[in-house]
Amino acid sequence: MRTQGIAILGSTGSIGCNTLSVVESFPVERFRVVALAAGSNVSRLAAQVERHRPELVSVETEERAEELLAELHRRGAAAPRVETGDAGLVAVATHAGADCVMSATVGVVGFVPTLRALEAGKRVALANKETLVIAGELMTKAAAQSGAELLPVDSEHNALHQCLRGERREEVRRLILTASGGPFRTKPFSVMEEATVDEAMRHPTWNMGAKVTIDSATLMNKGLEVIEARWLFGFGPEEIDVLVHPESVVHSLIELVDGSLIAQLGVTDMRHAIQYALTYPERHPCSALPRLDLAKLATLNFETPDAERFPCLGLAYRALRAGGTLPAALNAANEEAVGAFLSGRIRLTDIPRVIEKVMDAHATREVSDLKVVFEVDGASRAQAQEEIARLSVLHGAAA
Amino acid sequence: MRTQGIAILGSTGSIGCNTLSVVESFPVERFRVVALAAGSNVSRLAAQVERHRPELVSVETEERAEELLAELHRRGAAAPRVETGDAGLVAVATHAGADCVMSATVGVVGFVPTLRALEAGKRVALANKETLVIAGELMTKAAAQSGAELLPVDSEHNALHQCLRGERREEVRRLILTASGGPFRTKPFSVMEEATVDEAMRHPTWNMGAKVTIDSATLMNKGLEVIEARWLFGFGPEEIDVLVHPESVVHSLIELVDGSLIAQLGVTDMRHAIQYALTYPERHPCSALPRLDLAKLATLNFETPDAERFPCLGLAYRALRAGGTLPAALNAANEEAVGAFLSGRIRLTDIPRVIEKVMDAHATREVSDLKVVFEVDGASRAQAQEEIARLSVLHGAAA
Repeated sequence: MRTQGIAILGSTGSIGCNTLSVVESFPVERFRVVALAAGSNVSRLAAQVERHRPELVSVETEERAEELLAELHRRGAAAPRVETGDAGLVAVATHAGADCVMSATVGVVGFVPTLRALEAGKRVALANKETLVIAGELMTKAAAQSGAELLPVDSEHNALHQCLRGERREEVRRLILTASGGPFRTKPFSVMEEATVDEAMRHPTWNMGAKVTIDSATLMNKGLEVIEARWLFGFGPEEIDVLVHPESVVHSLIELVDGSLIAQLGVTDMRHAIQYALTYPERHPCSALPRLDLAKLATLNFETPDAERFPCLGLAYRALRAGGTLPAALNAANEEAVGAFLSGRIRLTDIPRVIEKVMDAHATREVSDLKVVFEVDGASRAQAQEEIARLSVLHGAAA
Repeated sequence: MRTQGIAILGSTGSIGCNTLSVVESFPVERFRVVALAAGSNVSRLAAQVERHRPELVSVETEERAEELLAELHRRGAAAPRVETGDAGLVAVATHAGADCVMSATVGVVGFVPTLRALEAGKRVALANKETLVIAGELMTKAAAQSGAELLPVDSEHNALHQCLRGERREEVRRLILTASGGPFRTKPFSVMEEATVDEAMRHPTWNMGAKVTIDSATLMNKGLEVIEARWLFGFGPEEIDVLVHPESVVHSLIELVDGSLIAQLGVTDMRHAIQYALTYPERHPCSALPRLDLAKLATLNFETPDAERFPCLGLAYRALRAGGTLPAALNAANEEAVGAFLSGRIRLTDIPRVIEKVMDAHATREVSDLKVVFEVDGASRAQAQEEIARLSVLHGAAA
């Protein structure tokens, strides 16, 4: 097999670092890191450049680029070509030497470069949730036209991809996404209303960033995953279910038309899914990772999600059923609301209120191009901020 | 799709009746029952013949054949061609109109007809455990030579077949057969020693015949399944593990080289596996069957089997590692010992003692042909009976 070229969008984040760790676990001739894009963590990026010697690197700004070059000089490391900003991200995503692009930036910044990578026919290993939530139709159309493969890195979608390997689409009745249930799974609504940021950040099974951890606490994370699953696998909202499974060992399941369920299980370590996406359709040993021992785990639990305490899940289904730009409005409102919760301006239980307000006011349109998506994103964020300001004044008055 | 011809060995037993129930759940043009073989349940067979109008029927003896014809006459039903004995079973198994043969007789009687069906290139849906335990090598060689498919109907092996659909052999690290653990899973050895037939027959999840239920109580059932799995899927003894799972919802799992586990789950109803074997590679709705509701089940448990209290499992691994005729000796000794327990001659905990005695005395040979297998079967049964007589005298003296 020839060496595969890898480009990483978001190389200094958690998924980016784990991707490099997976690459390093293979013989050097298997992968070649050709391009890296990062935001502002210049010292970590410099260390990655020194080790992997990519041809191209992109950072946020000219200032960061200068810092990076200075740091590389200090280390006595050779300097690659350095680009910046949105153009830099696209250059990394479409680098001629990249066979596979790991899309692992957070938020909408990864949207255009991911689309360009798919248009260029590259395999995209997708760890950026927003991409498919906001513009799943544009992305999957681009992939279909160029023949690009879209491999999910989210553990749930990666699990579904594995479960679906041996099955025909028309023989699959539904997808079942598992959810840990977050830190408030067993807590009454009154506790959720008073939850501090610290309490909401205590995710029971996965160690992740702040945004996704809060999304797990509200179950919006699962709602966004339902929307992603629709685009990745072509199932309708009525064919995608959510099952709460606190141990997060069963990463997801499919139900076949004959009633049989196929499940994928594994330890909660992102390197599994990353390696799967990089090497598919091959599987290789992950010798660095612990093996799952079901007898040691002893018990796996399952329950139905509580729609009353976790309204975000229902909002996501509503957005998916309506289609068009409504998921983009939901996503924008959620990002603003989560930010406002993290900065102490609103309560955890206000998050779905902000989202619902924005969705109610939204006039859903078709996602005809990128422009529409960005317009909706901007307008929805502004509306969300208005509602956040209103709620924070209310809470201030009440306190 | 053209109509598929079905022949059933053991049509009046539990698997046979369920097979006809599955056939009846499809539009008439999908399956045609061309041949049925039964033992002595003439009235049930007559009803099956009246309903399905097979071209050929086989029963144990000439006397049963006359009874069947009389019963059909009484019902005013047309008589098919009727054959008897071993030749009758082979005629059913190799009927020119049969595309698929359900091999569901109990014990060694199904051995020759199943081999003939495989030699004739027919798909064999295999529900008879002994076939592969005694002569897995002969069976799989015959299938390989004729290109016949061997589809397992046992829920565990059927689950493994489903899990393996999308995977390459060299990327599968091991098979994990689940076991309910039987009625003595949580009981101390002293309770097992004094167990009555009635207590041993209380299987926690599956409703099955006496022999297999006792085998479940000693875990020999799982031991036999480990040997079957070796022949069905080509995995060595060190690549097949057993995991106790009291709810019997996860029917079995595979572990891939990357550490990922794929599991098949379902309700405990044999019709699923039967339908899967008949329609593979297609899947069709099983509308008659309840759907599995994991949230309602709430909890699944897993534990390591206890080798001390369940020595039969270790004996089966020993037989598999030694290979040749040792599994046939183990199977024969087990059948005699289970029969002796059911008739009150020995204790439940004597079963592994009888088997071990026979295995220790056995001079393992290659399974070069059918003759060898039948010789070993007969000699091992005789040895087992000697040991059973000795133990029952001992117990008599102690009582």
